[in-house]
Formats: sequence, C-alpha cells, structure tokens
Amino acid sequence: MKEFFKVTHLDKVLQYTSDFPVTGTEEVFLPDMTGRILAGNIVSDVDLPAFSRSTMDGYAVKGSSTFGATEGNPAYLTVKGSVAMGESPDFSISTGEAARISTGGMLPDGSDSVVMIEHTETLDDTTIEIYKSVAPGQHVVEAGEDIKSQQVVLARGRKLRPQETGLLAALGKKSALVFKKPVIGIISTGDEIVPVDHVPGPGQIRDINTYTLSGQVREAGGIPVTFGIVRDDYDALYHKCTEALSQSDMVLISGGSSVGMRDYTIEVLSNLPDSSILVHGISISPGKPTILAKTQNKAFWGLPGHVTSAMVVFRTVVLPFIRHIAGSISLNDRKPYIFASLSRNVSSAQGRVDYIRVRLFDKDGVWWAEPILGKSGLIHTMVKAGGLIKVERDTEGLDKGSKVEVIPL
Amino acid sequence: MKEFFKVTHLDKVLQYTSDFPVTGTEEVFLPDMTGRILAGNIVSDVDLPAFSRSTMDGYAVKGSSTFGATEGNPAYLTVKGSVAMGESPDFSISTGEAARISTGGMLPDGSDSVVMIEHTETLDDTTIEIYKSVAPGQHVVEAGEDIKSQQVVLARGRKLRPQETGLLAALGKKSALVFKKPVIGIISTGDEIVPVDHVPGPGQIRDINTYTLSGQVREAGGIPVTFGIVRDDYDALYHKCTEALSQSDMVLISGGSSVGMRDYTIEVLSNLPDSSILVHGISISPGKPTILAKTQNKAFWGLPGHVTSAMVVFRTVVLPFIRHIAGSISLNDRKPYIFASLSRNVSSAQGRVDYIRVRLFDKDGVWWAEPILGKSGLIHTMVKAGGLIKVERDTEGLDKGSKVEVIPL
Repeated sequence: MKEFFKVTHLDKVLQYTSDFPVTGTEEVFLPDMTGRILAGNIVSDVDLPAFSRSTMDGYAVKGSSTFGATEGNPAYLTVKGSVAMGESPDFSISTGEAARISTGGMLPDGSDSVVMIEHTETLDDTTIEIYKSVAPGQHVVEAGEDIKSQQVVLARGRKLRPQETGLLAALGKKSALVFKKPVIGIISTGDEIVPVDHVPGPGQIRDINTYTLSGQVREAGGIPVTFGIVRDDYDALYHKCTEALSQSDMVLISGGSSVGMRDYTIEVLSNLPDSSILVHGISISPGKPTILAKTQNKAFWGLPGHVTSAMVVFRTVVLPFIRHIAGSISLNDRKPYIFASLSRNVSSAQGRVDYIRVRLFDKDGVWWAEPILGKSGLIHTMVKAGGLIKVERDTEGLDKGSKVEVIPL
Repeated sequence: MKEFFKVTHLDKVLQYTSDFPVTGTEEVFLPDMTGRILAGNIVSDVDLPAFSRSTMDGYAVKGSSTFGATEGNPAYLTVKGSVAMGESPDFSISTGEAARISTGGMLPDGSDSVVMIEHTETLDDTTIEIYKSVAPGQHVVEAGEDIKSQQVVLARGRKLRPQETGLLAALGKKSALVFKKPVIGIISTGDEIVPVDHVPGPGQIRDINTYTLSGQVREAGGIPVTFGIVRDDYDALYHKCTEALSQSDMVLISGGSSVGMRDYTIEVLSNLPDSSILVHGISISPGKPTILAKTQNKAFWGLPGHVTSAMVVFRTVVLPFIRHIAGSISLNDRKPYIFASLSRNVSSAQGRVDYIRVRLFDKDGVWWAEPILGKSGLIHTMVKAGGLIKVERDTEGLDKGSKVEVIPL
C-alpha cells in the first residue's frame, strides 16, 4: 500500500512563503529598469517640474489682464517678447503684457497663466487681441505640482513599469537598486522521459516540463537554469539535486511518476544537508502529490510529472514563492485577475481546491469562462485555456452563471 | 495662425496598420520560444501520446474483468507482471489478469483501463482483490487522444506561451520559425530637453520619453534602439531621422513641443525619400498632435512631447502597428481587458475619443475604475494609473456606475 499523503491545505502552504529569504540586490541602469523590483524607497531630491511650465502654445499673461475678454470685447495686450524653449526668460510680465510661449516653455516672472493661441489674434508686431479670459494657473503646471522634493515617490518592492522608469529618469536617477532576478533550477525526472531531440521508443515520451516551466519562470521574472533529465536512481537524483541547489535560489523537480521515483524524491529531499520536508501533498487538484522542502534556506519543489498538473501548481502555488524571493510586495498578479460568469455547471470534490481550465470569451460586455473538456493530462487543454478558475474546497461545484475570478494563463 | 490640424478619426488611423509589411522571420530554439510569434503553421507528425498511457498508479486490466466488483464482492485477478517506466511491456493481458503500472506507464496489449491502487488489495505475489469496477478507457489516455498526427496544432501568428512551447517540445520540434522582433527607433526632440545625467538649467527638463517609450516597446515584444536628443534644427532632425530609419523597422519621434519643432517634424517626414504623411492629428485626447508618415514602407510617428500623452498614444495607437509588423494575428492584447464599473462621472468633449487614466480596485466581486485627477501632463498620474478607459467620440461623458473596458497599463 502506498504512503498516505498527509495533505496540507493550500492556504497553509502559501503561508510558508515568508520562510524563505529575498534574493540579494544589484544596480540596474536606466534603459533596463522596466520589469525590475525596487530594493529601496526612491526619494525625489527635486521639484517636478522645477519651474512653472506652459501646457499649451499661446501667450503667458497675468490672468487678471484677460478678465472679461470676449469675442465682442477683446482684451488688448502688448507682446513683450518670446520665451525660447529651454531658457529662462530675461524679462518679466506686468498687467497688460504678454509673452509668446510654446508648450513646455518656462513662464516669465509676473505671468501666472497661458492664453491658448486659438483665442488670440495678432494685430501688429507688438499687439494681440484676446477673446477669452483665463484664470490664474490655467494652462500651467506649477513648480512642484507633479512631484515635490523629499517625497517618497516609489516604495521598496514596487515593480517598475515604463511610467515608473520614466519618473526615475525625470528625477535624474540613472540607476536604481533592485532585487536580483531569482535563479530557478529545473530538473526533469523519470525513466520514460527522453530529451526533445530523441525519437521516443515504445513507452517513452519527450521532456516537456523543462520547457513549460522555463517559460513560466521567465514570465515570472526569474532566470531558468535547466539541469536535464535524471533517471529513476537515488544516487543520480541526489547528485543532480546537489548540483542544482548550488547554482539556484530555488529548485523545481518535476516528474517522478513512478512510485519508486517519488520515494526517491522524498528521500533525497530529506537527506540533503540542512533540509526538511514542509509539505508532502497539497489538497488541490490537479497537483495533489506536490512536495515542498526547505533546503539550505531555499524552496525545493517536487512537482507532478503531468505537464498540465505541473503548470497549474506552478501558477497557483510556486509563483507566489518566486514573487516573494524576488522582493515583490505583491505576491499576486500585477495585471488584475478577470471577473467572469461561468458558462456551465462544474462539479468538484469537497475537501480540496479544484483548478479548472477555462476559455474566455466576451458577450454583452461581460467575460464568460467556459470550462475546457478533456482529461487533465492533455497538453492541448492548456493550449486552449486562457485561464484557471478556483473552486474552493468547501463547495461541491459551481452553477452556470456563477461569478468566478479567472487567473490568466 | 497655426496650421489647422485635419484630424483623422482613430478608427481610420488604425486601418493603416495593414499598409505596413510584417518583419522577416528567424529560427529560434526551444528554451527561447516563449513570447515569440509563429511565422508558419505547426503540423504534428506524431500522435500524442504515441501509446496508451496510464493516468494513475494501479493495475492495467481489461475493464470487463472488473465488472460488478464491490467491497463486498471483489474481483480476483492474477498479476502477470509490472510495466517498467519507459519500456514496452513484453507480455499481454487477458481476462482475469492484471499488470502493475505507474502513472505514465504504457498499457500492455489486451488491457484497456487502469484500476487505481487505492481500490485494490494485494493477497499474495500474484493475486489482487479489486473493490471497484472500471469502464474500458478509464484512467487511460489513448494513443492520439491529445494530438493527432497531421493535425495543424498551432497557426501562424500565434503567440507562444509556455504551454505552446511545451507542445512543440512534445512534438520534437527543437526549433520554430518565428517573426523577428521589430526594431523600434526612438528619438527625443526639443531645445528644452537635456540628457538624464545632466542637471537641468532654468527652463530645461530631463529626457523622459526615451525611457518610457523604450519600456513600452520592450513590453510590446519589440527591440528599442535609442537615438538620443535632437535640437530644434531642421538639418539635425533630418540627419537623425535618416540614421534611425536605416536601423529600425519603425521610428518614434517624441517632443517637438515648440511650434517650430513641430513644423520641422512635418517637413522632415515630408522630405525624406519615399515618404508621405498619412495622418496629421488624431481626434483623441490626449494625443491629438500625433503624426504618422509612411516612409520607405515603415511607420514613422511624431508623438506628443508630454510623457503622459506619448504613453497613451503608444498604448492605444502605436501598439497595434507594432503587433501587426511583429506578425501577431491579434492586434489587441493577449491578456484580456478588464470590465469595470466607473466610480464617478467623467465628462468628455464630443467629436473626439478621450482616454481617461483610472486606478482599479475591487469591491464585492466587481472591478471599479476610479478616474485619476490631475493635469494630463503630470507623470505621477501615470504612476498611479492601472489602466485607461476610452470614452467614445459621440458621447459627452460617462455616468458613475457605467460599465467600462479598462486597457491595462
């Protein structure tokens, strides 16, 4: 009789994330910051903008000089000069005066607003008519209105999108301290697994998990390092695990479909120096036979051999651990999950969390999630799927029309 | 008086995508396929799986040998042997016989289903009791059930996620023909713009668009190449545009805030060899002064100088062009947009499409989109934003509670 899995609830498994240390830090430079995670707070040391800027092409004025101006009763102003882009005007504006200014130009002293060029007419070299009044502050960004000096503008753990990268550029931060991308070792196991460039003999299949997991690691912001295929042999597995551990911040073993191989995985993870098994079986489907060990302070995973099971466990269980060691404040997705309506009933066993593959389609301004038929082991079901929905462990299923959260795949 | 913009409707601008040719193709190898776009159909030349496989640990049997078996009335079967992983069994199974098999093992001839080990008891070395009947086909994946030989499994233009990469591995495709990543040249212009490592003088600001646009290009699957900052000078701009064009599949010029600079951009784009202006102004906000030229069969964009306007135009207008030349069948997002409810009224001018920055939050199983206050030119509004909503051009605004589609940022 097989060993009984003392399965752990998913919530409990996810609490182990904080058991593992965050990776070290490194400095990255400006064009390469997007996608990285800040390892410290960013404090501005300047006001943005540093000076009051026009947001329109037109004339810088004192707003009060235009009060009451209309098409029928224009205001007449004297043009005192032009503001050159990138320069500080060498004159100031008094009541009844105006200065030509382009979008982004620096307001001369004395002016407080900009009249759009569309609301003016040139009468001669030094006189304009104004047809519409402006309030002080109109069509102007004040000094410090965007960012104030000494403000914490971005917090540690924040993922840098293009706009955060742009903000760092605006502040003159050529480089930033970010967390290193975690290196994730990947090992495939099983006597039936052959390398992808081999023609499988009877009973053999090609190694798939190395590539699906590598892709998932890369999408998660990690660096995949692959260690090939290990046969069903204790010594070979021990040796390969030691090698992977020395080069990685986390290791994923997938496979070990045979009972013997599974026993070896547990045995190796128990016997490695400074290693303990935290989880041996999770109450989820697919993915129940997942193992988590803490080995030399690193997470060491035994994932199911079925490609679909391994992918689902990665997406729903392993990913938050990668996000944690990568320094992210959010262990969930940056892009929000999708709320959808279920297109038909799904059944589920009580006592475990079920992840169901779904195809997404939109109808009448609502997302619908259509469960994908087909046995769990079939990779084409993952190719059809746009996401996963979670059926909680205390339910027997979900009715057609239920509101569900979709985890994008 | 300024040149009148003969603005083009957004829908019309987006129709120009097909005017531009798709990039060339290249071969990529397995660990690096994820994220790339297929340049040809993939046809399987094998059945997957190639043999009937067990999906459980247990015993391979003829289903008919177990019919009627219950705990009270078990079936007794003779164990004929074990299936070794990765090998073809050298025996066959008749009625009344069983073979030990692990998940992934090859079914022996004669067997058609697998009894889970949990529903069996070993009596002696060669006899087991079975407590539950199985139907033929149960706990088995048939040969060809996942993928059939000669099937088109992935179509040209498909973006390869980890699961599609895994499918290619399963089929033994070590490499695939994909479209080259488009090279996108980026130029910043304006006399007020200084490099990020300079301390801006009065009236000057640092170059931001080079970095925000580089990040957006990279997220779009392109390769950004930056050409620095050009002063407000026709010859300098002509020279830089020629240089960028020779090295890129598409060019983005941003800035030219001053009236003179904008005139130069139009003039250069008109005067470059084999170049014509397709669009001079788009009826969107922000982003109205956007220019699109077709220059030597490449899209050449003049984007607004304001960082937020340039980012919004990139996300909503330029991105579909990049997707098109990158060979994607879908010019929209792979990850679906989000349906949300609007948290308060927004007003909008008729006659143009407005893009409003929003923050997303979830409440009661629904996404809410909260419009972000603050002038359009402020970068902190983009840092706060999780997405954009589109207000169509024939409406004057949207009411609180309206259903909106959010374009993730």
